[in-house]
Parts: sequence; C-alpha cells; structure tokens
Amino acid sequence: MSERKAVILVSGGLDSATVLAMARDAGFACHALSFRYGQRHEAEILAARRVAAAQSVVRHVVTDIDLRAFGGSALTSDIAVPKGRSMQAIGEGIPVTYVPARNTIFLAFALAFAESIRAADIFIGVNAVDYSGYPDCRPDYIAAFERLANLATKAGVEGSAKFSIHTPLITMTKAEIIRTGQTLGVDYALTLSCYDPGADGLACGACDACTLRRKGFAEAGLRDPARYRETVSP
Amino acid sequence: MSERKAVILVSGGLDSATVLAMARDAGFACHALSFRYGQRHEAEILAARRVAAAQSVVRHVVTDIDLRAFGGSALTSDIAVPKGRSMQAIGEGIPVTYVPARNTIFLAFALAFAESIRAADIFIGVNAVDYSGYPDCRPDYIAAFERLANLATKAGVEGSAKFSIHTPLITMTKAEIIRTGQTLGVDYALTLSCYDPGADGLACGACDACTLRRKGFAEAGLRDPARYRETVSP
Repeated sequence: MSERKAVILVSGGLDSATVLAMARDAGFACHALSFRYGQRHEAEILAARRVAAAQSVVRHVVTDIDLRAFGGSALTSDIAVPKGRSMQAIGEGIPVTYVPARNTIFLAFALAFAESIRAADIFIGVNAVDYSGYPDCRPDYIAAFERLANLATKAGVEGSAKFSIHTPLITMTKAEIIRTGQTLGVDYALTLSCYDPGADGLACGACDACTLRRKGFAEAGLRDPARYRETVSP
Repeated sequence: MSERKAVILVSGGLDSATVLAMARDAGFACHALSFRYGQRHEAEILAARRVAAAQSVVRHVVTDIDLRAFGGSALTSDIAVPKGRSMQAIGEGIPVTYVPARNTIFLAFALAFAESIRAADIFIGVNAVDYSGYPDCRPDYIAAFERLANLATKAGVEGSAKFSIHTPLITMTKAEIIRTGQTLGVDYALTLSCYDPGADGLACGACDACTLRRKGFAEAGLRDPARYRETVSP
C-alpha cells in the first residue's frame, strides 16, 4: 500500500489540531511541522507536541526561527496583547498580533520539508472568517503561494509533484471547526489557543484567540475543556 | 532627506556583494540579512560579515535557520559536493547543491524584515545564466514571489508599500557582474564563493561555484583575489 505523505503545520491550537485530524482522515501519512519563533511562551510548543503525539504522526519536526530580530508584532515583541475585545473589534482591521510575513515563512519551511520527503500536500489551518484581518489567511494569498510552490521547487518544475496547499478550515466558523474535530475524535483538552498564556500554561481567557475559542464552543453547544486562569473562568 | 530603506540578502559570495554595492549606488539605506543554515562551514557567515561591514550597511542581521532537519541537499547534508565539472555539466539539470525551497525561505524572511522596518525593496543576487538549473533563480519565480509579497503583508494589502524584489544580476554573465562590482569598488578579496571551503576558510577551487567564479574573472580580464587551496591554485 503506497501512502501519500503530507506536511501539516501544527501550532498547538484547536484549528491546526482539527486540520491534522482531517488530513489523517483523508488517508495521508502525516508529518507535523511546528516552529519555536520567539513566542513569549513555550506552552505553545508543548501543546503542539501533545497534539502531534495524540494523533500518531509519522514524524514531528520542531524548528527554531528567530522573528524577534525583526520585531513588529505583539506576538514577538513587547507590544501588549489586546484583551477583552468585542467580536466586532476583533473583526476590524489588522490586529497588533499580526506577525509580518509569518505564514509565508511557515509555508516556505513546509515546502522545504515536503520536497525533502517527496510529499506534494501541505495543510495549514488558516481561517478567513474569524481571522479576516490577517492578509496571509485569505484565499488569494493561499492561491498565490500554491502557484509559487510549483515554480520554486525541483519537484514542481520537473513535474514529479504538483504541490497543493490545503486549507480545509478557510471558510468554516469556529463552531463548525469544533464540531468537525469532535466527530474525528480530536481531544481539545490538549490544545492551547491563547496568545498570552501564563507561566503555568493556563489560557488568559480574554485575548482575541481565547474569545473566539470560547464563543466557538458555546455556539457548538460543547464544553470547552481548556483550562483558563481563575479570574476569567466562565 | 528621506532615505529609502532596502533589505539585501548577503551570502558572502561575490554575487550578493555586487548586489549590495548596486543597491547602495541606487541610493538605498541598506539593511543586510544573512542566514546561518546548517552549512558545513562558518566561513560563509564570516565572509558575509566582512562584506556587510566593508559596505557600511545600516544594520546586518544574521539569523539561524535549520534546514538540516529536512535534508535533501549537498549543502545541508552528507551528499558530496561535485568537483571539477565542465561548464556544460554545470549548465545541465538541477544540481545536488540545490536546497529545497531555499530562496523561498530566504525571501520570506527578507519580507518579514522589510515589513518590520517599513522597507518595500528587497534585493537578491539570483542569476538565471550560470544557475539556470535552480528553479528558484528564474524570472518567473521572482515575479510570483513579488506578487505573493503584496498579498501576504499588512503593508501590501493596506497599500502603504508596494513590494519589489530586485534581481539586478538575473541576466548578467559572471564577467559582467565582476566588472560592475569592480566599477562600484567592491573588494572581492572579502568574498567567498566556494560550496566546500576548508576549515581554514580557503576555497576549494573545483566546485561549481569556484569554477564559475574563476571563469568569470578570466573572462573579465581581472585577477581573482580569492585564496584557493594550494593543490588547485591556478
């Protein structure tokens, strides 16, 4: 039986945990890729390791990149992560948690990984509904990267692979994502969505990512198994 | 006087040293970017530092990335670097020194750097004449990346910057590149082109990069100031 390999970008959040389950369900042999990139917390990497292990990936590569050298984002510098914003505020403009060219860097590494293992399929959990403010989460951007991938590589140019960037969540609401993962057996207790977790690894419950997650579980009619700090617990 | 900033990818080789001089000559305030990426030698980084310092860049960022985790190239693994190949052999096919998605990764970081410092111009010393075998050195690829850059970024989407990927060497022969650099005062003694330098930092003189360099100086009618290992010196 020949297995099709895929590279899955796994952040440790609920979106990428769901994408990984969807890629497995589609029959891919899954190779997970995560980045340690000057987040202010190691908790994300621990969550990524839990998620990848729980879903029995073939291999999980965690690679270090230094985005702090460039600055320019609340996720990689000392800019404060916004808290307690309304859904309307979250939906407007490009947030300070935007990291310049982050998905381009992530997809570039995923492409290198994919070509090295002779995989042609890359999965990324971008979402254009809740994260409409991030330019590198939109369908146009993904299509442009897919085109680039096939011009950039030996495999693409020689025709031995036609790279596809899979974004199965791109038009789903958070509640739909959660219900899909639930059906596929994803254990969301292992995931961490928070932009600003404590040293104890607990989610803040108030940043945009926590707000979207909590709303998603509420709309899906499911209990959120995340552990939040006491002061903000529901 | 408002200065336009640019990000220049500087490898320590003669091509990128020339590109840096051309960007300076065009009036840009130059920010150099280099990568420590699991080359088998540190000599490249030392050359990049010499080149950047000699040309008085505003800032030189050297960032670590780990391409060894993926393998797949003579430059990042134990595959032997080919030596003594003819110009015809160098021109054919995609060489084992091809690193999967390397320029995509380099340009993605350059884009992050550029957006962070509010620069819209990125310079890279790719060449489609001598390096026709590398898919990510071709004009089609560069045009696709430029398009991506403007979809990928806050600056591109909001219209505060229109990113340009400058490839001033792309159609030049090595001799033309050397003559251009000579006119602009580039000190090629500071550069290192070799794919396989010794622990002493001396160039091998026989890999494809050394072969192209030596031929370029010969055709330009200039003396190559590189220090080669005794056994292969001209």
